[in-house]
Amino acid sequence: MTQLGIVKRHITRAERAATERLGGFGVATVHEAMGRVGLLKPYMRPIYGGAHVAGTAVTVLLHPGDNWMMHVAAEQIQPGDIVVAAITAECTDGYFGDLLATSFRARGALGLIIDAGVRDVKDLTAMGFPVWSKAISAKGTIKATVGSVNIPVVCAGALVNPGDVIVADDDGVVVVPAAIAAKTADAAAAREANEAEKRAKLASGVLGLDMYKMREPLEKAGLRYVD
Amino acid sequence: MTQLGIVKRHITRAERAATERLGGFGVATVHEAMGRVGLLKPYMRPIYGGAHVAGTAVTVLLHPGDNWMMHVAAEQIQPGDIVVAAITAECTDGYFGDLLATSFRARGALGLIIDAGVRDVKDLTAMGFPVWSKAISAKGTIKATVGSVNIPVVCAGALVNPGDVIVADDDGVVVVPAAIAAKTADAAAAREANEAEKRAKLASGVLGLDMYKMREPLEKAGLRYVD
Amino acid sequence: MTQLGIVKRHITRAERAATERLGGFGVATVHEAMGRVGLLKPYMRPIYGGAHVAGTAVTVLLHPGDNWMMHVAAEQIQPGDIVVAAITAECTDGYFGDLLATSFRARGALGLIIDAGVRDVKDLTAMGFPVWSKAISAKGTIKATVGSVNIPVVCAGALVNPGDVIVADDDGVVVVPAAIAAKTADAAAAREANEAEKRAKLASGVLGLDMYKMREPLEKAGLRYVD
Amino acid sequence: MTQLGIVKRHITRAERAATERLGGFGVATVHEAMGRVGLLKPYMRPIYGGAHVAGTAVTVLLHPGDNWMMHVAAEQIQPGDIVVAAITAECTDGYFGDLLATSFRARGALGLIIDAGVRDVKDLTAMGFPVWSKAISAKGTIKATVGSVNIPVVCAGALVNPGDVIVADDDGVVVVPAAIAAKTADAAAAREANEAEKRAKLASGVLGLDMYKMREPLEKAGLRYVD
Amino acid sequence: MTQLGIVKRHITRAERAATERLGGFGVATVHEAMGRVGLLKPYMRPIYGGAHVAGTAVTVLLHPGDNWMMHVAAEQIQPGDIVVAAITAECTDGYFGDLLATSFRARGALGLIIDAGVRDVKDLTAMGFPVWSKAISAKGTIKATVGSVNIPVVCAGALVNPGDVIVADDDGVVVVPAAIAAKTADAAAAREANEAEKRAKLASGVLGLDMYKMREPLEKAGLRYVD
Amino acid sequence: MTQLGIVKRHITRAERAATERLGGFGVATVHEAMGRVGLLKPYMRPIYGGAHVAGTAVTVLLHPGDNWMMHVAAEQIQPGDIVVAAITAECTDGYFGDLLATSFRARGALGLIIDAGVRDVKDLTAMGFPVWSKAISAKGTIKATVGSVNIPVVCAGALVNPGDVIVADDDGVVVVPAAIAAKTADAAAAREANEAEKRAKLASGVLGLDMYKMREPLEKAGLRYVD
Repeated sequence: MTQLGIVKRHITRAERAATERLGGFGVATVHEAMGRVGLLKPYMRPIYGGAHVAGTAVTVLLHPGDNWMMHVAAEQIQPGDIVVAAITAECTDGYFGDLLATSFRARGALGLIIDAGVRDVKDLTAMGFPVWSKAISAKGTIKATVGSVNIPVVCAGALVNPGDVIVADDDGVVVVPAAIAAKTADAAAAREANEAEKRAKLASGVLGLDMYKMREPLEKAGLRYVD
Repeated sequence: MTQLGIVKRHITRAERAATERLGGFGVATVHEAMGRVGLLKPYMRPIYGGAHVAGTAVTVLLHPGDNWMMHVAAEQIQPGDIVVAAITAECTDGYFGDLLATSFRARGALGLIIDAGVRDVKDLTAMGFPVWSKAISAKGTIKATVGSVNIPVVCAGALVNPGDVIVADDDGVVVVPAAIAAKTADAAAAREANEAEKRAKLASGVLGLDMYKMREPLEKAGLRYVD
Repeated sequence: MTQLGIVKRHITRAERAATERLGGFGVATVHEAMGRVGLLKPYMRPIYGGAHVAGTAVTVLLHPGDNWMMHVAAEQIQPGDIVVAAITAECTDGYFGDLLATSFRARGALGLIIDAGVRDVKDLTAMGFPVWSKAISAKGTIKATVGSVNIPVVCAGALVNPGDVIVADDDGVVVVPAAIAAKTADAAAAREANEAEKRAKLASGVLGLDMYKMREPLEKAGLRYVD
Repeated sequence: MTQLGIVKRHITRAERAATERLGGFGVATVHEAMGRVGLLKPYMRPIYGGAHVAGTAVTVLLHPGDNWMMHVAAEQIQPGDIVVAAITAECTDGYFGDLLATSFRARGALGLIIDAGVRDVKDLTAMGFPVWSKAISAKGTIKATVGSVNIPVVCAGALVNPGDVIVADDDGVVVVPAAIAAKTADAAAAREANEAEKRAKLASGVLGLDMYKMREPLEKAGLRYVD
Repeated sequence: MTQLGIVKRHITRAERAATERLGGFGVATVHEAMGRVGLLKPYMRPIYGGAHVAGTAVTVLLHPGDNWMMHVAAEQIQPGDIVVAAITAECTDGYFGDLLATSFRARGALGLIIDAGVRDVKDLTAMGFPVWSKAISAKGTIKATVGSVNIPVVCAGALVNPGDVIVADDDGVVVVPAAIAAKTADAAAAREANEAEKRAKLASGVLGLDMYKMREPLEKAGLRYVD
Repeated sequence: MTQLGIVKRHITRAERAATERLGGFGVATVHEAMGRVGLLKPYMRPIYGGAHVAGTAVTVLLHPGDNWMMHVAAEQIQPGDIVVAAITAECTDGYFGDLLATSFRARGALGLIIDAGVRDVKDLTAMGFPVWSKAISAKGTIKATVGSVNIPVVCAGALVNPGDVIVADDDGVVVVPAAIAAKTADAAAAREANEAEKRAKLASGVLGLDMYKMREPLEKAGLRYVD
């Protein structure tokens, strides 16, 4: 349950090896490998194109317009982590800029996922510090109310537990529970195994209708061709 | 973690007594009593005004445009339950109408909370079966893909575990974890204890500035009066 | 194709009998009877609850912020028509109020469907003149640019041809092409034929799982029950 | 310019007589009388139907999620005022409920216009205390940061100066600068003078095309009739 | 009318020459040349900047969360076509990725216009396969329900008939009915004929007020200059 | 107050020196320096990345779908100005393209801020003429109704007076009243003075918790660490 005013210092992170393997796949592949679940809502967009990261979640719950807990979260970051920030109400303010990014990076963070706004995007882009956010906004925040760090949070419609794996790329963000990280990496690998072959066939003009043997099921489902 | 294709038959429901006590308070009071957490997003609106219910959650996870699991959920309903429906992607289709409402009511359900659309709202209103939803839409759904019943779900931004208490009124919807239902009811009662007295004072013209002794802290915070 | 500056005086309206029969069904039923197509988007909401109308479409295409063609449309209204107003760009201005409603009613119009805003909603409610719209807005419009009347229009995502049947109720708005109005009314009637029986069964506690024989297909689709 | 931490105690309110006369007209009429300006955005909706108020603005600027200044504003209310609340960033939290409404009413306030959320809507409706808001939300607010009272604010896209006239009804909200309140009331009266006559003509079947002599300008603008 | 379960094999495509000429103009110019109609809604955005295509429409109607018909559509593509995908309800799922793009390109498709989501955007960008969509989403789709191919569809608010010309660039997407493709290309050419001259004049400091002779009409319309 | 049909020829622009100094800071810094006010809403986005401008506001108030006043505004532009365009109702049409940009630039304008749509974005990008807008849309506008130039306007939620300083970058847009331009530039400079030092500390691994001495206030606010 959601508790305010708590910082959990010891969390169990997904295995490094599984996390890194998951980072070898796109978000769409990972989400399919989990059975088509785990995605954050599609309004979460990267502040610049081309970033692709995988890391373990340090979670933070913030109040609208208040980024105090970001500094508390910084201390809990270990190399390879990605900070996942949720807000207790809808907010688009700019909770995070180049100073916090400098601090997060110094601690080893690989990026930030935030269900609110971010600012200093030109600097963040120059630094190569990737952020996926709901908004870009110069609106500053205050430091007045405590939230929590490393409790389970709901971020952009998805439940994220501290230590879960986060994978993010141009298609969005997916969360993989730590307990199934290795299994999901296996499933993703299996899924991609024959993609190259399929791609080659499709590129040569073979139709999906034939490659996937869809003609009969389509006919049974009632599809008919007319002139 | 989110698993598809699962129906959990035995869940631990919050105590009946605590649930009923929580139903004696408005959603705003319950949310404050929990420390200002637990609300579903404000886009969740009742299909008619004036309803106020409290019950234990039977959860269901559905796919976009597919209401098959609603029938599976119906069997798991016990008297005093409220069905909480989450969707794996954004959808406004009308998953629920008067036939399902008839079935849910026959099983003892007190209402429905759905992060999607609902239809037959005139009939539902006539039946007095309350629904809080994201949309009203006549769009029908199919029955093709399995989801799950009684797993933890994220509905309108809030994590709901099966058996949790749901309180809903004209102000929105709040979820209270079963483990803290009684404690939250106590806190809500304490909160309301002297509301009548406060209301009487304010009605007589006493200012909140004086009743809450705000003048000094406001001055310290830098507020100044000009002519 | 969309042409501006045209008023088509003679249109073929759906048969009166079929139109009236369609008015005996809810929007959800009509949409299902057509094979789950024909709905306008769910953002189209009635300005007051409880209205239920069916009529033949007189269409009008307007420019943003300009209601001049509403007066041109008024002349083309025949008793039993419903005016369907589309705009060439997104707009929420209040194109229609009590004076136009008085004029439309005098010509025999049963209601208005408009992909924009409407005003004087208290008067329209008192008159019992139903409107389904995207917005309520006091913003007035000008009379500067010609559009068209009785051409095919796209209104809230649906193609409406002049003379088509429009059915609207608390669940939304559906358009039925004139050529299939009678057939759709038949299909809707067939759909409703045994609803009373189903409702009685469900009310008595029979589950949809059994009534619709879903247990086996659900098991085949992989659903499993756990404790 | 926007200044934080200021309460202006003496403001010049629009004349009582002009304010009351403006209250005799609908929002749409007042907005037209001003030359089609002055409306707040149409997302501002009344919490219950049928309310129609006119009063002088006491303005308050609040921070997201912080309603402290509402209590400061209460002291500045005089009988016949309407409180107009703006927020320094987008927010849907419930800043206002039945206790504040009791206090505002005791001071003589006629209603509240707030570019954010409101709660206790069942109680507010029972009290007959009208509110026009962007959202309904049970989300509570804190009291941590000072804003300002009786400075010019931008509320829902419109500039409101303290003392301006606010008129609100089911169609929305309009602001009339104090300096032109009387003139605007005159213009509104002139506008309505012959509405009854027009309504009677339209009700008898006369077309707007003829009553407003639109046929010739439409033809000049290129409109043509086809069969 | 919208029919499900149909694939139309023979469609009449707009003339190749006219289509190519239209591709020489920007979307804004083509839309103006048609009399300011034909645009898809502005929420349709390119997945990468700088693309500019013109082709003939192969249309496909899909269900929410179901991309089965994309494979059926692939077979109907001829070189120079652009696929236009409409959905029967609002949906942001990722219907299309790099495998389908490979197949579409092998058939000669120039791009995709889809009133839903798309994924694998990094790959699509690398391939140079342009897509205009409502969303970017990693959310996968199923293959369970038949829709239709090459029937008239409403895509992002615009009616598109199979064979119509689609022009898309950074400003958006416009549809030109096949029957008026040549005429529209002529009108677009005429519109651009003296643009270079106008641009040169404006660049030299001549005002539009003078170049377009607006001073007198503005004065007549009531504009006045003050100090 | 808002008046239509007015062009104010002589306005008092903020001092050139202060304006240029403000241009040396990011939007976030300027907004903080003003006490966290003055931002336009975050839906205002640049049409291309990396632009950073500061100039004095020439304001224009337009009607939905009508860009006539843009030509009137052009004449009032002086070198170093930025045009700020507000609309009397919500509109996403493309009011501005490469011809107007050519004219504005010839007059010395540095950019455009518009609470509506813009088109020809590829050309504008090639020209390096920056625009911050609510939408990109090819939808053309007409020239039928007069608005005003150089009156106070509300643009994207912020009050802008002619002559105020506008600063815009990738984070958004801020308005600085002319009267406090110099003071705000001083405050911004003070704010940035020790940023390099802070950044260096944070980069070396010092935590904000320590650098800003937050540990004690956090503890007082109730934060506690658990294992």
